[in-house]
Amino acid sequence: MIKLNTNYLKGFVADHEIAYAEDGVNAAAALLDSKNGPGNDFLGWTTLPFDLTTNPEYVKEIELIKDSAKIIKKSSALLVIGIGGSYLGARAVIDLLKSPLYNNLKKDTPDIYYIGNSINPAYLNEVLSIIEDRDICINVISKSGTTTEPALAFRIIREKMIAKYGKDGVRDRIFCTTDKARGTLKKLADEEGYRTFVVPDDVGGRFSVLTAVGLLPMACAGIDIDAVIAGAQKAVEDTVLPYASNDCYKYAAVRNILYRKGKSVELMVSYDPAYAMMSEWFKQLFGESEGKDGKGLFPASVTFSTDLHSLGQFVQDGSNIMFETVIDIKTPKTDIFLENDKDNIDGLNFLTGQNMSMVNRKAFEGTVLAHTEGGVPNIIIEMDKIDEENVGYLIYFFEKACAVSGYMLGVNPFDQPGVEGYKNNMYALLGKPGYEEKRAELEKKLG
Amino acid sequence: MIKLNTNYLKGFVADHEIAYAEDGVNAAAALLDSKNGPGNDFLGWTTLPFDLTTNPEYVKEIELIKDSAKIIKKSSALLVIGIGGSYLGARAVIDLLKSPLYNNLKKDTPDIYYIGNSINPAYLNEVLSIIEDRDICINVISKSGTTTEPALAFRIIREKMIAKYGKDGVRDRIFCTTDKARGTLKKLADEEGYRTFVVPDDVGGRFSVLTAVGLLPMACAGIDIDAVIAGAQKAVEDTVLPYASNDCYKYAAVRNILYRKGKSVELMVSYDPAYAMMSEWFKQLFGESEGKDGKGLFPASVTFSTDLHSLGQFVQDGSNIMFETVIDIKTPKTDIFLENDKDNIDGLNFLTGQNMSMVNRKAFEGTVLAHTEGGVPNIIIEMDKIDEENVGYLIYFFEKACAVSGYMLGVNPFDQPGVEGYKNNMYALLGKPGYEEKRAELEKKLG
Repeated sequence: MIKLNTNYLKGFVADHEIAYAEDGVNAAAALLDSKNGPGNDFLGWTTLPFDLTTNPEYVKEIELIKDSAKIIKKSSALLVIGIGGSYLGARAVIDLLKSPLYNNLKKDTPDIYYIGNSINPAYLNEVLSIIEDRDICINVISKSGTTTEPALAFRIIREKMIAKYGKDGVRDRIFCTTDKARGTLKKLADEEGYRTFVVPDDVGGRFSVLTAVGLLPMACAGIDIDAVIAGAQKAVEDTVLPYASNDCYKYAAVRNILYRKGKSVELMVSYDPAYAMMSEWFKQLFGESEGKDGKGLFPASVTFSTDLHSLGQFVQDGSNIMFETVIDIKTPKTDIFLENDKDNIDGLNFLTGQNMSMVNRKAFEGTVLAHTEGGVPNIIIEMDKIDEENVGYLIYFFEKACAVSGYMLGVNPFDQPGVEGYKNNMYALLGKPGYEEKRAELEKKLG
Repeated sequence: MIKLNTNYLKGFVADHEIAYAEDGVNAAAALLDSKNGPGNDFLGWTTLPFDLTTNPEYVKEIELIKDSAKIIKKSSALLVIGIGGSYLGARAVIDLLKSPLYNNLKKDTPDIYYIGNSINPAYLNEVLSIIEDRDICINVISKSGTTTEPALAFRIIREKMIAKYGKDGVRDRIFCTTDKARGTLKKLADEEGYRTFVVPDDVGGRFSVLTAVGLLPMACAGIDIDAVIAGAQKAVEDTVLPYASNDCYKYAAVRNILYRKGKSVELMVSYDPAYAMMSEWFKQLFGESEGKDGKGLFPASVTFSTDLHSLGQFVQDGSNIMFETVIDIKTPKTDIFLENDKDNIDGLNFLTGQNMSMVNRKAFEGTVLAHTEGGVPNIIIEMDKIDEENVGYLIYFFEKACAVSGYMLGVNPFDQPGVEGYKNNMYALLGKPGYEEKRAELEKKLG
């Protein structure tokens, strides 16, 4: 389903370099398989696709997800409350499989708004004004229940819902994805009788899209989650193949080779606006997994041809610090046949008689040739089409590549110690009990 | 209105370094003022804010814009057709002053969809399905009329509009922003009797937001364009002050100093989701102006605290290749007062009795302290509030800073030779007449 095309690395990475990387990749993969590497408490995602259909607890969870989605679909809007890995995966998949314009399209599934991923009051007020007179459900996603952004949004929206539907009425409208047993959200949900879904202990946030974290919102948007899981299962099988036929391992190898050659930015490129949030998900996955100990490729993203008219100049001719990883989707979701225009004032008649997707493909081919000529290596990831199976496959492909790549880099791909810094400072500055000393110290620094 | 705060450069850039940069800045500014530098055919933007209210031709254009906006506002949706500088500025300002959720909010101005900035057929089909039964106007923005993305979208939508409204009926619905006299779009508009607006010869695409290119869509969204212009005028006055009191010059200086110290990425940061498209506009402005001759800071962007849960780890603890430029907006558009919760299950009662914006501010302060401690220099750009004047000021502030910074870097900030590469390749691969030889050569490379 997903194929790596290394043709546009010629002149940048020699075939023997890719061959030489095999031992390093195998060592990293062995660390992952043996569960002896750093972060080995968080390897639940590796077997998750098959666990979902064979482990009785997960099978039950999937049924609960489908059943809940049926209830949620009766409402006119779903608010997904979560930050980071608790919303990015679901949003990415829904944008890609449905549309970035999903909320504006005619459809028989609820609108979806993502809140609790920001502390900006204006944005939250705007969403509240949009859903004011509408029939809503919420899915609040937080392992601990105490992460500030989602907890604040949940507190505000729950109060409004209780005022509108009553304490009993909200029971069929509040769905909590949280820790199996502990935490404030689990406690509240159990006390109030809200349905709960599990964020597994051994799956970190950025690897959680194929748990209830991602699957419940997806199901509410009308996505066939069984097919997503089936695609991921296929990827599990393909990504354990020997190096020579393992495109996931090769992708991990090539990006490490380019990093060691001095590239510092990996620019994720697609030619479909619907892919933009997948790039955001990718940026968290790789940026948070590898960006530590002073190391890592900085992940950035663009949508072409749109951004060829903004960042294209830089890629072509600016600082030579990057390589591109291009998602080449072979078939668009829909097409437009270009008719002849008898006047041809715009001079575009040379395009008539073909599909618009062909023009987009030539833009892609022309750009790859131009950018490689400009000194920018291009990794191409080929994907047949945009459907559940392919997207499920792609998700697992990137997760596995990220883990292997992180071990090759010599980091723990499963922790995120750097996220605590801002959180602790923020708590201290907000006067959270227990942070008094730090508060005084920080306020002195702020002057 | 806009102030530079250099407090968080301590330990990264010494005061004497900023002082030493004065001569370089003054030389760059002199090149701009004397109109003797490279790209001096494209300096119309420098005096544009005052030209708009004093030059009779511009005064007439502003009246035409307001008059046309009144007509467009009667329809239920406006399609803005343009790519790069032909849509980014308008979209950025509308998102920031109105909302990124503008189309979903209750309002008395038309929805706005941006098309012709992509060759993806699925996206265009989706917009067409959304506006199918609605009363629409379009504003097509293209200097030449032949840029593939907008020309294709215009061709497709114009045909549909003529089928719906008739050849005469579209005259009050099609508004063309294009060259004053030449080009295929101007020719068509004159022949068909469509209203036209001018993309001035001496203002490049990425500097064109304060011409009809940006002002017409803004006016249609209900934005007070006079106030935007007034803000920009204030910036014209402030950005010619001597170096010691010129924050625009100092910003240009500091980013060049950081570049010369080895930083390769400038990360534009805001704490408001409504600012995201302003960052995209910024990325084109600086990336396309400076990214040439193998030079330039790579511009990237994030929205915090959202992306502290995705790229925050990398910024805090990953490769030390970046500095942050943070837009510190002092007052949000609206606020939310945080009430006490008698149960306090989420443990957030330490926040009650204050506004949510205060929590967002503490997130900002806590993050600046954490990231600077992590070795990432922070430039802070302070902005009082989000209104027309401030946004107009900010736009000109960045334009001027970009021009001065580009001259300091030793590039022509006003050309974009690297954008031609992909275009010519695409034309050749699409079989455009006149590109036959190149086509054969490229197809051989593609194999």
